[in-house]
Amino acid sequence: MRVHPAVEALGFLLGTWSGTGRGRYPTVAPFAYREEVAFSHAGRPFLSYRQETFAEDDGRPLHAEVGYLRCAGRAVELVVAQPTGLVEVDEGTLEGTTLSLSSRLVGRTSSAKAVDQVRRTVRVDGDVLTYRLEMAAVGHRLGLHLEAELRRA
Amino acid sequence: MRVHPAVEALGFLLGTWSGTGRGRYPTVAPFAYREEVAFSHAGRPFLSYRQETFAEDDGRPLHAEVGYLRCAGRAVELVVAQPTGLVEVDEGTLEGTTLSLSSRLVGRTSSAKAVDQVRRTVRVDGDVLTYRLEMAAVGHRLGLHLEAELRRA
Repeated sequence: MRVHPAVEALGFLLGTWSGTGRGRYPTVAPFAYREEVAFSHAGRPFLSYRQETFAEDDGRPLHAEVGYLRCAGRAVELVVAQPTGLVEVDEGTLEGTTLSLSSRLVGRTSSAKAVDQVRRTVRVDGDVLTYRLEMAAVGHRLGLHLEAELRRA
Repeated sequence: MRVHPAVEALGFLLGTWSGTGRGRYPTVAPFAYREEVAFSHAGRPFLSYRQETFAEDDGRPLHAEVGYLRCAGRAVELVVAQPTGLVEVDEGTLEGTTLSLSSRLVGRTSSAKAVDQVRRTVRVDGDVLTYRLEMAAVGHRLGLHLEAELRRA
């Protein structure tokens, strides 16, 4: 099936990616994780996104998130829901195969931890995807939280 | 795998549900749709939720959404992302097997239509799930948008 023209520019993301990453934040001990990410499409003007991470030591599930990617002119939009009770609306730009997104909104349920800002940078070089996620949360300024390197299956 | 105790009260939702629904809104012609909904779990303190609808006449894909359900004490929390560029944070209560949720927040990307409020009521009676979705959007007051009756596979 052909990728919808509206998201053709994001076609380089399509596929299932897996690899490892490292997490840190002032509030937690540094940690390592395995990750699986999938970008898929069904011929409609958006890509579906899902992500799961697992502890590198014992394989226990850590994080997960799901959402959709859209294009609006030269802008790229990402909406995400997380089982931690968070939602994100991110917007940004695509240059070559590098996606630079910043949160326009981070919403949360009453019982979720406060996240104020998220910045996601995703680069694809052939079959290698690297990303950095910076976060401002629970009173801390924007700082590196996650970085990972994944390979396309 | 056992449902996590934190979301045991929502266990009645688990499974894949399919059926038909009707949509209306002051801005669109009434429409009929087929729908598939799945609530699943992986032993963690949330349920995963995904939904897809298809036109009843020619089967073309209509809407989709994904998200997570959580419990916080007696409250139920739902976070949702939609390919229309919307995110929802809904909160509410569970009485028996009826879930009544109202949006605490509806967020959107720059290119998405404005939705101001959503109210979702989901009832399960054995293997039948019915829901109503009310919405206030693009300047209209809260009013019925969707209602459907689904059966557990």
